[in-house]
Amino acid sequence: MLSWVDGRPAEVLSVRDRGLAYGDGLFETIAVSAGRPRLLARHLARLEEGLRRLRLAVSLELVEQELLSFSAGLGSGVLKLMLTRGEGLRGYAPPAEAKVSRILIGSPTPAYPPANAEQGIALFPCATRLAEQPLLAGLKHLNRLEQVLARGEWDDPAYAEGLMRDHSGRVIEGVFSNLFLVRDGRLLTPELSRCGVAGVMRAELLAWATAQGIATEVRDIGYDELLQADEVFLCNSLYGVWPVRRLQAHTWPVGAITRKLQSHFGELLDS
Amino acid sequence: MLSWVDGRPAEVLSVRDRGLAYGDGLFETIAVSAGRPRLLARHLARLEEGLRRLRLAVSLELVEQELLSFSAGLGSGVLKLMLTRGEGLRGYAPPAEAKVSRILIGSPTPAYPPANAEQGIALFPCATRLAEQPLLAGLKHLNRLEQVLARGEWDDPAYAEGLMRDHSGRVIEGVFSNLFLVRDGRLLTPELSRCGVAGVMRAELLAWATAQGIATEVRDIGYDELLQADEVFLCNSLYGVWPVRRLQAHTWPVGAITRKLQSHFGELLDS
Repeated sequence: MLSWVDGRPAEVLSVRDRGLAYGDGLFETIAVSAGRPRLLARHLARLEEGLRRLRLAVSLELVEQELLSFSAGLGSGVLKLMLTRGEGLRGYAPPAEAKVSRILIGSPTPAYPPANAEQGIALFPCATRLAEQPLLAGLKHLNRLEQVLARGEWDDPAYAEGLMRDHSGRVIEGVFSNLFLVRDGRLLTPELSRCGVAGVMRAELLAWATAQGIATEVRDIGYDELLQADEVFLCNSLYGVWPVRRLQAHTWPVGAITRKLQSHFGELLDS
Repeated sequence: MLSWVDGRPAEVLSVRDRGLAYGDGLFETIAVSAGRPRLLARHLARLEEGLRRLRLAVSLELVEQELLSFSAGLGSGVLKLMLTRGEGLRGYAPPAEAKVSRILIGSPTPAYPPANAEQGIALFPCATRLAEQPLLAGLKHLNRLEQVLARGEWDDPAYAEGLMRDHSGRVIEGVFSNLFLVRDGRLLTPELSRCGVAGVMRAELLAWATAQGIATEVRDIGYDELLQADEVFLCNSLYGVWPVRRLQAHTWPVGAITRKLQSHFGELLDS
């Protein structure tokens, strides 16, 4: 499918780009339907935070324009955006005059089994632990070998996602999703200040739940607390919400709060 | 300067390459002189270990042939090799039939000030700490944002390198070098099983020192122990050995063991 580099159709990028050399950049994976990028304001807000923390300079207005016009052409599917520090000489030092590369790639909407959303999923317990790096935590940067290793741990399609923990054993996220628990009517999700990706659907969901009068809490969550939850679900900006039914010997029911959120965010992504 | 992709002259790579998307790959930075890649056996050994740990499949014989013929064309300079998991569909799952991309890039020998080797260097104390990830420790993989952040901390040319520590405060390495201490005639270098890059010059130097009857030790090293060392130096496969003279208020002399190693490895790289 279509791809653009710096605003023009292109399939290739310089081998000297620092995105390739060092993973020196950020990305976003954006649902596109009816020719429009979904949750765009939240994707742009996360990019802005990432650009600030990595000290990358690019016009977000230009990026937004490109996302809108690429999406109009794509119609429906997935738009992946990468922003890198551009071409560099040899060496880690960020060039004083870096020209950020803007890469957009279109792909079809992933064909997840409908049962994932309808009946819920089984979670694979990944052995790969997330390293703690507060300087990068929360960002959707291009250093993603931990996710590659974790996703490589299973190929049994019975597992739709995998659970990732940190080195202290706290539960953090899925390989490509954020994790939520419901306990006594409250919504809990792990703190992501040491590791993990702060998903745009996670942010949207926390904001909407609060507006609906559902109490929310963002904090460290241990493995035992996960097992004791009343409901567990995953979310991301492509599939919305998937109930989690099983992790090893443990099972959870699909609860009312999960279904309420799922219904709202399913409609939001499809509308 | 010249670059090759998959054995042919090329300046660009697919925007769908997983090296760009996830940093899903490895690299080597190889000194080339008189048309030959230096420390080639050690570079290949580290690649072999990295390919095994990342489960990447490529013929090392083919890679070696390309390194040899590219070096013959380059004459002298630096050869950067990247091996990535190649093009992928969307998603972290490593493709079952991944076709590894082989990228070679030539560049001139870096023009480091001769004083770095002759008089020694001042080390910048980086605030960026290395995260602990045993699954990736030691490898020269393409996830290098920590080095980019650390190298971005200073631009005063008075500092030729920066000291990187882990989150527990242990000293680990330079941003683009390995670190050695001399204490009571023994050579010490940090253990790299939790974080850090196990440099080929580090391996070569440990082996040669042992053959010379110098006792060597690889283990955790605290900051205080660094300050108490008799001699401190850095090494990598391009510049050989640089004595370290200063870190903040602390100074070290340039000692006899540093000079002995420097003399041997300078000749080895230049011969």
